[in-house]
Amino acid sequence: MSRPLRIAVAGLGTVGGGVVRVLSERADDLAERAGRELVPAVVCARDRRKRRADWIAAIPWADDPLALAQSDVDVVVELIGGESGVALDLIKASLEAGKHVVTANKALLSRHGGELAAVAERHGVGLRFEAAVAGGIPIVKALRESLVAHGVGAVRGILNGTCNYILTQMESTGRSFGDVLADAQRMGFAEADSTLDVGGGDTAHKLAILASLAFGTRPSVELMSITGIAQVTPDDIAFAREFGYRIKLLGVARMSAEGIDQRVQPAMVKLGTPLADVDGAFNAVVADAGEAGPFFFEGRGAGEAPTAAAVIADLMDIARGSVGPAFGRPAANLITAIAAPPGARTSAFYLRFEAVDRPGVLAEIAGHLAQFEISIESMIQRGRAPGESVAIVMITHECTSIAVESALNVIAGSDKVLSAPVMIPMEAG
Amino acid sequence: MSRPLRIAVAGLGTVGGGVVRVLSERADDLAERAGRELVPAVVCARDRRKRRADWIAAIPWADDPLALAQSDVDVVVELIGGESGVALDLIKASLEAGKHVVTANKALLSRHGGELAAVAERHGVGLRFEAAVAGGIPIVKALRESLVAHGVGAVRGILNGTCNYILTQMESTGRSFGDVLADAQRMGFAEADSTLDVGGGDTAHKLAILASLAFGTRPSVELMSITGIAQVTPDDIAFAREFGYRIKLLGVARMSAEGIDQRVQPAMVKLGTPLADVDGAFNAVVADAGEAGPFFFEGRGAGEAPTAAAVIADLMDIARGSVGPAFGRPAANLITAIAAPPGARTSAFYLRFEAVDRPGVLAEIAGHLAQFEISIESMIQRGRAPGESVAIVMITHECTSIAVESALNVIAGSDKVLSAPVMIPMEAG
Repeated sequence: MSRPLRIAVAGLGTVGGGVVRVLSERADDLAERAGRELVPAVVCARDRRKRRADWIAAIPWADDPLALAQSDVDVVVELIGGESGVALDLIKASLEAGKHVVTANKALLSRHGGELAAVAERHGVGLRFEAAVAGGIPIVKALRESLVAHGVGAVRGILNGTCNYILTQMESTGRSFGDVLADAQRMGFAEADSTLDVGGGDTAHKLAILASLAFGTRPSVELMSITGIAQVTPDDIAFAREFGYRIKLLGVARMSAEGIDQRVQPAMVKLGTPLADVDGAFNAVVADAGEAGPFFFEGRGAGEAPTAAAVIADLMDIARGSVGPAFGRPAANLITAIAAPPGARTSAFYLRFEAVDRPGVLAEIAGHLAQFEISIESMIQRGRAPGESVAIVMITHECTSIAVESALNVIAGSDKVLSAPVMIPMEAG
Repeated sequence: MSRPLRIAVAGLGTVGGGVVRVLSERADDLAERAGRELVPAVVCARDRRKRRADWIAAIPWADDPLALAQSDVDVVVELIGGESGVALDLIKASLEAGKHVVTANKALLSRHGGELAAVAERHGVGLRFEAAVAGGIPIVKALRESLVAHGVGAVRGILNGTCNYILTQMESTGRSFGDVLADAQRMGFAEADSTLDVGGGDTAHKLAILASLAFGTRPSVELMSITGIAQVTPDDIAFAREFGYRIKLLGVARMSAEGIDQRVQPAMVKLGTPLADVDGAFNAVVADAGEAGPFFFEGRGAGEAPTAAAVIADLMDIARGSVGPAFGRPAANLITAIAAPPGARTSAFYLRFEAVDRPGVLAEIAGHLAQFEISIESMIQRGRAPGESVAIVMITHECTSIAVESALNVIAGSDKVLSAPVMIPMEAG
């Protein structure tokens, strides 16, 4: 058996603690599989005085995370978090010191991934991040190593468990986004500051990494259009259901001759397709792998065990000496993505208008849509109560989002329309 | 860039042709990702005179497949098929000559996998078989390299596209197994000799490989109970639907303290769970990865592109030098599975009786079931037409299959019961 793989772990929160626990509890099985022992050699966290489990207390402690880069280890596991600062300094210093790095830090990778991949290559070490996307689902490895024969034309996924949990709860209870979020925060299912989750930013970070692996682009959220779930209403969820759809927060990246279309937004997914059935805190990814067809992956998106499992899988690859380029291609070859023009892609759209219940309203709305060549596939019109507003809900045929936005701008100006019209695209599930 | 990886391909059917095509058409992308070229250096097939595509005709030809083992290549791709004979001789000779081997041959691996893994290790080369299970789904790699942190307690899957296609067609058309099979054969969706598919043997081969990767056992179908789909009737499919289930041919392997429970059989899967929604020729696998939760993988199970993609992924691993033990652990450590005693596992069961429409029938059946401590969760009784037989259909609470079999033996002896009772277990989806 080769000499042990010595591991430094920076950050001992849920995931870091889980990683050290697995390395200790499952040491024999991991060593048998890797052909060498995996040894947590030094750990580091913010607060040394915090009481910790025995398997952590037994490991040498470093006070300064940056000192790990110079310590006697083969790999540094960065679980500090933050898209720059100490985490970035530690990763860079470790790679430059010839140490492999494993990280779960999607925010950091979506911004500095290309640059760090180059540093890793220059120093002949690996930069691994299975835990950064979709928890324990081995989607990073699948895109980097498995789905390579026919190319991947599109990836789309449910990448944030908090949003998926909130949307699932909104559907099952009929309650509003704000109420469900407040409950989730009270019960610890959502962060006190949930902006990054519900605003779509976290999904965007993960999508940037998936897009990079799929298309060979330098990861970046700059070209992404990002909309969170705060505007999704119980009404829209109920109408979606009537039309045979469910609303999910999707990250979607599509490669075309005109560029890459990357967006995070609530989307209508047809009931019965795989993504529509992903409930609660689960994550899922669909990869369209050219002629090899779509592949679907589902699993727990967060939490100690799934995320620690992903970190361990990366450590096992490193232990076995399997450390190719971070994004599956030489860093120098990663291209800067060009955004597909907004008119390049068409889809069907769900539209909802709140209007006064008066003759001619529908004719006016339909007229404006026709003006922009938007045709209607199906429609529901439903009054609330006599004298109150009426909801007019439609599914369009395929059209561009530009056409829809233009039409909605005109329609929003009508004195018969009472609030900003809602538009949600349909996506393949 | 390192020197090219030289590849021999034995067998130029759908998959072999697809592999050579991808190696030729996507050469640049593969070389960029692997850090070296992947070159088809020599090919071999049964009939040299057969007209072949240009990308194949350009490659040097060997008349004797066994000669490939001695040729100037790094890897031999075995796509000849057959669980012994030339395929086995070629794989052995190639490994012994220090060449890596990639194969899609599940029948062979389920029988000789342990022995071949040992030969590969002795000669320091890789034995890879992503294409042997579930087409392009990277489930072999996921079990071998990704889902390793918490252990895998059970794997279950839809592993034969022909069976899944037939069951899907039976449900949508209401037609019998025989009719649908005959049609599928006419249209080329099923082999002329479909015994291995519809009898469950092919699923068993694949399940043996998955179980080995999951549990560290030597692959074997010997301990497996195997039932195919020929006995599934449109009635059972319709009743399943009424109870909220769908019938799927599942391969299920479960590790417990008492041993491994490995079975291939039609099973009831609850509608809305991932496996229930796998339609047509798709394959899918659920892996229960301990605390990390269940993982679900779905994709095309057969055909040129998905299967060739899996072979290419293996070749890419070899090109990058990532060649650990074939089943994820040293071959010498693979254990011989012990079958769990049949009483060790409980599940709910679907039962159907065809009985005479006479007072006391239900009381008699229920009485016998109670004798064996089998209790009923729900029931449908439906007469066909006055004077005809009546179908009595039940879902039991959890019990052992031994109890059910014993009760059914007694019930089958009743003069009120007209045909052999049907029993189908419920499985998690």
